[in-house]
This record gives sequence, C-alpha cells and structure tokens, in this order.
Amino acid sequence: MLLIIPLLTFLMMNTVEPQTPTVPPVRHVLTSVSQNIREETWGLTSRDLRLPGVADWSIRKYTLHGGRQEGVDLIEIDNGRLRIVVSPTRGMSIIRVERGPIRLGWDSPVKEIVHPQFINLASRGGLGWLEGFNEWMVRCGLEWAGHPGKDRFVNNLGEVAEMDLTLHGRIGNIPASEVEVEVDRQPPYRIRLRGRVDERMFYGPKLELWTEITTVPGSPALMIDDRLTNHSSDSQEFELIYHANYGPPLLEEGSRFLGALSEVRPFNQHAARGLAGYGEYRRPTPGFVEEVFLMTPLADADGRTAVQLRNQAADRAVTMAWDTKSLPFFTLWKNTNTPEEGYVTGLEPGTGSPANRNIERQAGRLPKLAAGETRRFHVEVAIQAGHEEVERAAAPIFRLRNGREPRLNASPVKP
Amino acid sequence: MLLIIPLLTFLMMNTVEPQTPTVPPVRHVLTSVSQNIREETWGLTSRDLRLPGVADWSIRKYTLHGGRQEGVDLIEIDNGRLRIVVSPTRGMSIIRVERGPIRLGWDSPVKEIVHPQFINLASRGGLGWLEGFNEWMVRCGLEWAGHPGKDRFVNNLGEVAEMDLTLHGRIGNIPASEVEVEVDRQPPYRIRLRGRVDERMFYGPKLELWTEITTVPGSPALMIDDRLTNHSSDSQEFELIYHANYGPPLLEEGSRFLGALSEVRPFNQHAARGLAGYGEYRRPTPGFVEEVFLMTPLADADGRTAVQLRNQAADRAVTMAWDTKSLPFFTLWKNTNTPEEGYVTGLEPGTGSPANRNIERQAGRLPKLAAGETRRFHVEVAIQAGHEEVERAAAPIFRLRNGREPRLNASPVKP
Amino acid sequence: MLLIIPLLTFLMMNTVEPQTPTVPPVRHVLTSVSQNIREETWGLTSRDLRLPGVADWSIRKYTLHGGRQEGVDLIEIDNGRLRIVVSPTRGMSIIRVERGPIRLGWDSPVKEIVHPQFINLASRGGLGWLEGFNEWMVRCGLEWAGHPGKDRFVNNLGEVAEMDLTLHGRIGNIPASEVEVEVDRQPPYRIRLRGRVDERMFYGPKLELWTEITTVPGSPALMIDDRLTNHSSDSQEFELIYHANYGPPLLEEGSRFLGALSEVRPFNQHAARGLAGYGEYRRPTPGFVEEVFLMTPLADADGRTAVQLRNQAADRAVTMAWDTKSLPFFTLWKNTNTPEEGYVTGLEPGTGSPANRNIERQAGRLPKLAAGETRRFHVEVAIQAGHEEVERAAAPIFRLRNGREPRLNASPVKP
Repeated sequence: MLLIIPLLTFLMMNTVEPQTPTVPPVRHVLTSVSQNIREETWGLTSRDLRLPGVADWSIRKYTLHGGRQEGVDLIEIDNGRLRIVVSPTRGMSIIRVERGPIRLGWDSPVKEIVHPQFINLASRGGLGWLEGFNEWMVRCGLEWAGHPGKDRFVNNLGEVAEMDLTLHGRIGNIPASEVEVEVDRQPPYRIRLRGRVDERMFYGPKLELWTEITTVPGSPALMIDDRLTNHSSDSQEFELIYHANYGPPLLEEGSRFLGALSEVRPFNQHAARGLAGYGEYRRPTPGFVEEVFLMTPLADADGRTAVQLRNQAADRAVTMAWDTKSLPFFTLWKNTNTPEEGYVTGLEPGTGSPANRNIERQAGRLPKLAAGETRRFHVEVAIQAGHEEVERAAAPIFRLRNGREPRLNASPVKP
Repeated sequence: MLLIIPLLTFLMMNTVEPQTPTVPPVRHVLTSVSQNIREETWGLTSRDLRLPGVADWSIRKYTLHGGRQEGVDLIEIDNGRLRIVVSPTRGMSIIRVERGPIRLGWDSPVKEIVHPQFINLASRGGLGWLEGFNEWMVRCGLEWAGHPGKDRFVNNLGEVAEMDLTLHGRIGNIPASEVEVEVDRQPPYRIRLRGRVDERMFYGPKLELWTEITTVPGSPALMIDDRLTNHSSDSQEFELIYHANYGPPLLEEGSRFLGALSEVRPFNQHAARGLAGYGEYRRPTPGFVEEVFLMTPLADADGRTAVQLRNQAADRAVTMAWDTKSLPFFTLWKNTNTPEEGYVTGLEPGTGSPANRNIERQAGRLPKLAAGETRRFHVEVAIQAGHEEVERAAAPIFRLRNGREPRLNASPVKP
Repeated sequence: MLLIIPLLTFLMMNTVEPQTPTVPPVRHVLTSVSQNIREETWGLTSRDLRLPGVADWSIRKYTLHGGRQEGVDLIEIDNGRLRIVVSPTRGMSIIRVERGPIRLGWDSPVKEIVHPQFINLASRGGLGWLEGFNEWMVRCGLEWAGHPGKDRFVNNLGEVAEMDLTLHGRIGNIPASEVEVEVDRQPPYRIRLRGRVDERMFYGPKLELWTEITTVPGSPALMIDDRLTNHSSDSQEFELIYHANYGPPLLEEGSRFLGALSEVRPFNQHAARGLAGYGEYRRPTPGFVEEVFLMTPLADADGRTAVQLRNQAADRAVTMAWDTKSLPFFTLWKNTNTPEEGYVTGLEPGTGSPANRNIERQAGRLPKLAAGETRRFHVEVAIQAGHEEVERAAAPIFRLRNGREPRLNASPVKP
C-alpha cells in the first residue's frame, strides 16, 4: 500500500542503495553456466527462513512439459499479495503477474510457453517471434528491437553488409545463463530474482544483460532493474523495449491510458486516423488493425515518468514508472481485436520506437554503448485495486502533466 | 480379417459412434501441457487389464537418444497382429506399421527419427523438411501443405504481404501438446491413441488438430480420425495431405497402384511423359526423377473411396480408404530411385495437391474453415497378406470403378 | 616425448595398423542411436583397468547445463600430460587441449558451448555459425565448408536450382549419433574416442563421418583419423576443413607461423596487403580486419606436410602434420583483433579454401566422392614446451622446405 502513494518517490528510493545490511541475504543459485547448475525444481518459503511478522511468501521453481513448452523453466514468486511468474528459458520474460483477480498479462492465441528451440525468428519474413509471444512483459532487443527488414551490419571483412533483422530481436528467446534468488533477512525482506542473458557472438554483439526483479512481501509492486554491458572493445548500437501487454480485466471497452506526455505520434497512416483517441480503448472489434503510437514522456527533475492503464470503472489499474534517462520513449500498441485473435494493448517504455533499426538510426533514436560501458534501466510496476488506489497512483502523473496536453504530431514515425 | 472384406462398409461403421459403452474405457495421459505431464516411459498390456479372449496386445512408450533423435518420444502399439509406431514429438506422425514381414514404410536416407529442434524448415530454399522425412505417414499442413515458394499472407498491419512457404508445412515438426491412450473394456476392445497438435501463433493461424489412431486387437487395420478446428474469429485457409510412403516389400518392380478415379493429371511436363503408366512401378532406377500425379477419386454415395498398392505377385498389399468429402484429392508420388536415394512411392489423400498454396488457391483447391469450425478427416488403412486377402480388399475399388477408366488429363497441375 | 622428434614418421606409423593385439581393448559406448543409449555421466581411469607402469589417465563424460549450453555433452580425456575436451553434441569438435599452461584454443566472445538447438545457421545472412564458434578445432563441411552465398544444387525435380549456403557448413552443429571410447590393454595403451556424425537427408547428401581421436598416455600429441563415406548411389561433392584456432599463449605479438609451402595467396585485396608478412603476428590490434591466406603445402614422398605456430620466445608451440593427399590445401586465418573481439589465428588444413563452394568448384578445389566411396583424413597435433622441443618439432618442416621459399601469388582467391 505504502508503495502506491509515492510511486515516483519510491522509484528514486531504489536507485539509491539502502544502508548495507548487517545480516547477509539468503542466496540460492538456480541456474549457472559457470557452476554447471540447473535445478529442475526448488522452493523456498517465508516459513523456511522463520522471518518475523511479514506476509507469507514463497518462491517455486519448476519445469514445463509437453508440446512446444517441453523443458521451459518457470519461477513463481508469491510475495503474499502478488504472484509473479518468470521464465528464465525465455530471456527472463515475466509471463504474468496477479494480484487476486487483477492480472498483468493477456490471452494470446499462443497457449504454451514456447521453448526457444521451437522458434525460428526468421520465419514468416522475420515474424517468427510471434509464435512464442504471450508474455506480460517481454524485453525486445538487444542488437535490435523493432520491426523486421533489412539493415546494415559490419561483417567479418570489416565491410558494411546488409542483413535481415527479425521482429523484436533475440533477447526474449535466449535462455538465461545465470539465475539466482536473493532474500533479505532484514526489513523490508526484499525478494530479488536475477538472471543474466547474453547476446554474444563472434563478429557481432558482445552484450550482457543482467536482469533483476525485486518485490517486497505484501507489496502490490515490483521493480525491474536491468544492467546492460557492452563487452566489445568497440562501441555497440543497441535497442531495448519493455513490451508489457495487457488484456482483460485492465483492458476493456472504456479503459483509459493516462500519461504525462509532450508528444504523441502515430506509427503509420493507419494509426494517424486514431490519433485523437489514442488514450481510449474500444471493445473487442473484429478486423481491428493494430494502432501504434510513439510518445515522448514528460519527466520530473530526476528524469522519472509514469503512465497508467485503468479499467472503465477506474477501480482497477496498473501503473508503470521508469527512468526516462535510459528509456526516453514510450510506445502504445493498441490491438483491440477479438479475444480469439488477441485483445491486447502494449505499454512499452523503450530506448526508441519499434520501427526497423534503420529508421531509428536515421531518427536519432538509436543509442550506443561505448566499449565496456554499462547502462541501467529501471521500470517499476504496481497494481491498483479500488478507486482510491487507482486515483492515488494517478496523482503523480497529473502533477507531472501540470495541465499540459501532448502535442499530437500527425506525421508518422514510419515514413 | 473381418475388417478386410467390407472395407468401405467398415469405414462407414466407424463414422457413426456405437452405442455408449457401459464400462468406461481405460484412459492414460502420456503427455499433457495442461497437466504438465510428460512420461518418458510407460507400458500397458492386455494381461494388465485381464481382458477375456482377445489377441494379446501391448502399448509401450519410450524416448529415443543420441544424435538428432535425442528426446524424441515414440509410442508402439502392438495389437497382436499389427505393430504401429507413432511419434508424438513429430506431430503424431506414424513412423511405421508392420504386419509380420509386410511393413508400411520405407528406407529413407534419413536414418534417425529427427527431433524438430534440429530441423530448420526454411533451409535449402524451403526444403528443410526433407532432413527429417522418413515416416510411413506424415501429415502435411496445416496453414499450407505443399511446395515451397512465395505466397501472400496478412501481416500485423492488416496488409497483404508475401512470405516464403516451406515444403509440406509445419505440422509434422510440431510436438503434440496432449497425448493419451484409451482402451475399451468391451468388445471389440478398441485401442485409441490421441494427440493434439497445435499450429497457433499471434497474427497467424489458430489451428488445433486432434489426431486419433484406432485399432482393434488382432486386426490388420488401423483408422485415422482427425479433427481440425479453427480457433480464430476469422475464417482460415488450410491444407492437409496424408503423405503415406511405401518402399519394399509393397513397392517393387511390377507393383501396381489401383484406384477408382475420374481423372489423373501430371504434376509437371516431366510427369506428363509417364502419364499412361501412372499405375505401374519400375525397379530401383538410378537417376529416376520423381513423377507426381494428381487424381480425382470416384466415391460412393457416402463419399468414400479406396486405393490399393499391391506387390508384383499380388499377394501383399495395402489398402487405403477415406472420406472424399473432406479429402477430395489424391496425389500419387513415384520416386523409384535407388535404395540409397529412397525407393519410395507416396499415396496421399488430401484437401488439394502438393503444389504451392498460391496455385491451389487459384485452382479452387484451397479450403477454408469458418471461425470456430471443425472439420473431420477419416482415413482407414489395412494390410493384406495372401492373394485372397489382396483381391478381396480390391473388390470394392472395382465396384466403385464400375468399368470406368480415368480421364488422362495431360495438362500439368503446375503451370 | 618420443612422439615429438619423428613427427612425420609417427604420422606414417599410424596409417599402417600395428600387429593385431592379442588382448581385446576395453570398449565403452557412450551414445548410440542404434542401441538407444546416451549416458549423461561416465568415467574410466587407468586405475580402474590396473594397467602397469603408464601415466595415470582418466576419461570423463558429463553434460552441461544453463543458458545456451543446456544439454551439451562433453568428454574429457586426460592422458596424464594432455587434457582433451571434445563435444559430441557439437559434431565431435575439440573444444580445447591443454598441456599444463599451454592450451590449444582461444578466448572467443562466445562464452558458452552452444547447443545446436540454439543455432540458426541461416541467420545474419548465413553467418549464424558464428554464434557458437569457440572451439579449438571445429570441422567445416561436409556438403560445403566455406563462405555463405548462393550456389547451385539439384532439387527434387532433378533440376539445378540455387540455394543459400551458410558459413562453414553444418557438420559442426550436428550431434554425434554414435560415440565410443576404446582403450588398448597393451602398450602403448592407446586411448581412442570415436564419434559418427551424419549429414544425411532426402534429396541431398548421404554423408557419414566417422571421427577418431587417438592419444597415448603421457604423450603431448593427439591424432585425428576421420573417415568420410558417401552413402549415395550418386557421386557427391564435399568439402572438409579442419578449422583449428589459437589464441594466447601460443598467439602473441611476435608469434610465428612456419610451414613448408610452395605458394601463398591472399584471400582478397585486403589480405594481399599483408602478404609479405603472412608468417608474422601482431599484438591485439583494435579494428584489425581478418587476413586470410590460402597456401599450398610442400609434402614428402608420402604426401605428408607439417606446420608450426610458435610463440615469440620460441619456447612454446603447436605442430600440426597431415596427409596432403586428402587435404591438399591449407588456410591461415589471422584475426589479431582485441581480446574482447577474439584475438585468434586459424591453422586450417582442408580439401580447399573457405571461399564459397561455387568459387571452389570453378577453381578445381572441390573434390567428389564416388557412390559408396570412403576417404580418410589424418591430422596429427602435438604441443611443444621448451625451446628444445619447439626446434626439434620444427626440424622436419625445415627439411621439407629444403631452402625453398613459397611463391607469393598476389592474385586473390576470391575474385
């Protein structure tokens, strides 16, 4: 509860480390390439640690079987209020988050949690990623994060050559190399899940992503703290989009998207027609064609911004807050098609837009990491239940807006 | 034995369900995505169930190891006369069927039962499917079933775009999500093996295929009953071909193919030269180039037809009967090359021809499923041993023919 | 030690089989498709066999876990002096060899031993092979072994069609189908590791590669004896390159490559500029672009040749000797980029150059196997420690040279 009110404040609190704990945390390695470990099943509960007076929590690791999900690892963290399901096998994607009847996630036509061994990213003209797409939050990246199509790269001859990028990059289909759980023995008894996902090759990127999900027992919030390091001796272009997807109950006819924005641009001519109503959602609509908007968030003095998706009655919501210094853009993806096709909206903080990387490069939205450089990414997500929580979580967004309306820039991102 | 005589009658019998059994069947789930089950090994025999006076039968599940077959599941049903080997990992394909020395199957240059993780369907210009091709009966489909090459699809922008289809589609390389065995405790003590294979993605098909193989203890026959459902809210084009392949001992010099046909067309100019002799087989012939014929079967009042492949002495044969309402076409594939290259013929009931889908669409051979629609496919296969059995099984084919000879239409299917 | 002095002599000794041993060797099958075996862990030591008076040796089989190396099998042979690590899952590639502080191998940006299930050879315009490239010795081949790009093939219609070749072929990413260890009970107590890797498909190659690695307890050398068989009834083009890669400590500024060569040609215009200094190595150099040279070795009367890579102080070296009758060409790959990018040189005996197969065909460097034909390949590798060993191992190379200098042919291999 406490976490809801000062959402942006909380964000700040966590970028500064608290005082060093005197009791070392409990730490357990679930997967490790360096130690040659992969535990198929494991569990830990608050009772095991006999921690005083906090919400009962549990952590559970297990492996999926059958069909295209054979061998997929899942980790479930139940913090006593929030149930968080993460898949190390799918790049530490967060499959879903539930607070009672409110869930972060959606009903994808993809019903299994698909093992990367069954995904060919290049299939269907570079749309193979869609064969495994059903997570609440999947990272897009790292060498590229956007739409398929040709872009340049430097080949083994040091020459600029051309290759076919695939939709949303590879990181969501690379199994984590190191996975560990850490639980503080001191208040607020934080639970952390860390995973390292490498996008490395010869004559290509040498990117290492350390992901971290943190939650506090009894809290309706979780934080994502990722560190991306370029292990090349050269600078490296990169893209990172946090593709967070919502269906019912947060998405329904009359659901609203709230942000503090300086600009909203449609992705293409089709989306331009829906520009004025960018924040409103329709009921499931047969034949609906996706509308994508690229937004520039307003941020406070520390670079923080927040958005909210709330249901029609404004008594259920999700709020996402993040650091715009590393994630300066935000993409809103509206796909209010039928439930069968995927009734879903994506709220996507990112380093740029999901256009093909060559468009991003030309638009100046393609960041680089210097040799050896590390960049941090911070996204905070909380679920609100009840009208009061919803409005309280929205207050910082309205404060950020300070009465300003975004410029509706009808010129499409994609020429 | 009984099953042989009234082959087409038998087919009809089984499309109508018998009266509800009063003793529930024995049912065992081997793989289940919904229950998170995958049993590596399992077995059941007639002795376990103490069923009275029927042929001894057994069912055995195990997993393959080594090379490219690491992790492939197989299920063997020995009904006391017929041994049937099915691979859930390879889309419920039937690897081989044996009745004593007579086998349904062939000697492919592919010697392992290849796990889909090692198949890249797009390789070799869309011919990657051939790296795992060695089954007796593999289904081709579902979004497409034919030859590689470009065809249109609708992308995420709702626009018609172009993609590269791959040979014979994906269903044969998708592991089954649900697999179960069911044995009736009442005569004729039917044994059923069911498997669900999904071809599902976001912005793509939402097709579910429930396959069922049924056999009766002591019988020389098996039935395939498949149900294909379109879970999209839109209609969905689909293709399905039952690619059943035969080498020795059924295929040899002088083997003959018998059908009741209204038309036979060559697939291309090359096959056109062999049109007159479409029903005759050569000895293994170095440098033989495949000849493919598309046939339109004659059917009885209920839409049923049958074909037979018999050896030179006409004392060994296989008979396939099916429902032409859902499978109106039949492809005969002759590839009487050397044993090393694959001496094989394919008998292939299908929704259309194995030409590229764009050809099928233009030719009106590309069916659609409405939103939520289910279509059933029924194929029955029996092995004949001895001259008498062979001729008896052929009798219904001759009755269907009723003296008519097929029109030999020299115009190639593939322009 | 003994093996070092008469390096080429030793090579000859081993192409002739010694007298039949009277005590059968110990033989253990680790993986077998035909017997449905795959042992996850296994071990054998000299103590287990109570062999008299030889160096203590051990063999250990285990499986890797985590990240992209989940399920990869490794076999370690420690012969008492040399530690050899082989991966059956990656086509019997030799991951690394160590003699105390001297190792054969390099520090690739690829940090895991990647399971082929995570490799898409076609990605990045055919450069997907590079996502798993970190072995000391990986075989390139078999249907093709060189650079990506289009080349012709014969399709199912018997027509010449065009396909995209992928970098260095497929054999390095095909798991071995049969793996066995054999230890002689008689002096010199040879240890053999055999693995069969098949490159087989329908309408494609039917190639079988039996690899064998032999070492003698206490020896600083190992031998590779491979047998390649064409199981097609047609002749079959093939390529095979032994891509052996070296980083520190053998590669450093001032390291030298020594060979007995009749000709050295640059691969392209870029390499042509470095032609004169082909045998010298630079320190790690940011922005260094690979230089590749194709060499024609001089051979003795039996067709044998040898090369050496030695460090700056000439007190550490590796010597490779091989049979030029089956491997008439040698490629030197210099990639003295930064440690982060991969500071490495490749010494690569081969059937031809690593240019695209169409270039090799035109240049007459593309061999064929007749139907049923088997060809043998023999490569011997030894590590030298100390100045004396290094020079002694180089002596046969100088004898082969006999004062001759190679012709520096500036015309690039790749037009």
